[in-house]
Amino acid sequence: MAEFILDPAFVATSHAVGDLPLCHVRLQDDGRYPWLVLIPRLAGLREIEQLSAPDRARLMEEAVAAGKAVRVLGGLSGFEVEKLNIGALGNVTAQLHVHVVGRCAADPAWPGPVWGHSAAEAYGGASDAVLVARKALGL
Amino acid sequence: MAEFILDPAFVATSHAVGDLPLCHVRLQDDGRYPWLVLIPRLAGLREIEQLSAPDRARLMEEAVAAGKAVRVLGGLSGFEVEKLNIGALGNVTAQLHVHVVGRCAADPAWPGPVWGHSAAEAYGGASDAVLVARKALGL
Repeated sequence: MAEFILDPAFVATSHAVGDLPLCHVRLQDDGRYPWLVLIPRLAGLREIEQLSAPDRARLMEEAVAAGKAVRVLGGLSGFEVEKLNIGALGNVTAQLHVHVVGRCAADPAWPGPVWGHSAAEAYGGASDAVLVARKALGL
Repeated sequence: MAEFILDPAFVATSHAVGDLPLCHVRLQDDGRYPWLVLIPRLAGLREIEQLSAPDRARLMEEAVAAGKAVRVLGGLSGFEVEKLNIGALGNVTAQLHVHVVGRCAADPAWPGPVWGHSAAEAYGGASDAVLVARKALGL
């Protein structure tokens, strides 16, 4: 069976948070939004339909858990999440991944999507946010 | 129990395809992309986390079925789907809905998201596409 290898594009744009049963979780390196990325740890995936049905249900539950963590992350910086945006796009980085982004009417891209809106503003130090995300995910 | 009422915003921008066990399915009225929208037929939903876990798994499976239908729909007009984009945003229309959009490198918004990219180009007549989507979904 082929080994899961994380696409280096994620390393350049996000910080490792930890591993849930199915997905590797990363914090998007953009301090403007509370934003986690879930990457199922199976080789050769591009589309959700390639996962088994039990793994798809698992992905859904991990996305819901990430949503709760995103609300906590937002709270760190006074960003009250009014809406979750959950998306599997992959037009730029093909390896299957799911974005879970907290949104509010005062954020830079509102009400449009965050993807492709504007250049990220990297965290000065992301370690606090990573620790908060780990705790919120029970890691 | 409150009754499910479809937000009129969907009626203005899409055509009814039919009902799956959980979701009402609509064809987005933009002939540039093969694009279906799934709206869980339960009252008062804004976020996926409000669904029960079994309904979340059902939503996932219906999104996968919609993805297959989107590939068939694309075939109608020579649009070969290279990537599925699946997204639950809801920043503009709050009622919970999931977009399932077929994408290819030659489409107008590639590689950015379709949401908010440019004004829709309505189908001249959407009835063929609706029939194809119904058949592909087993409706």
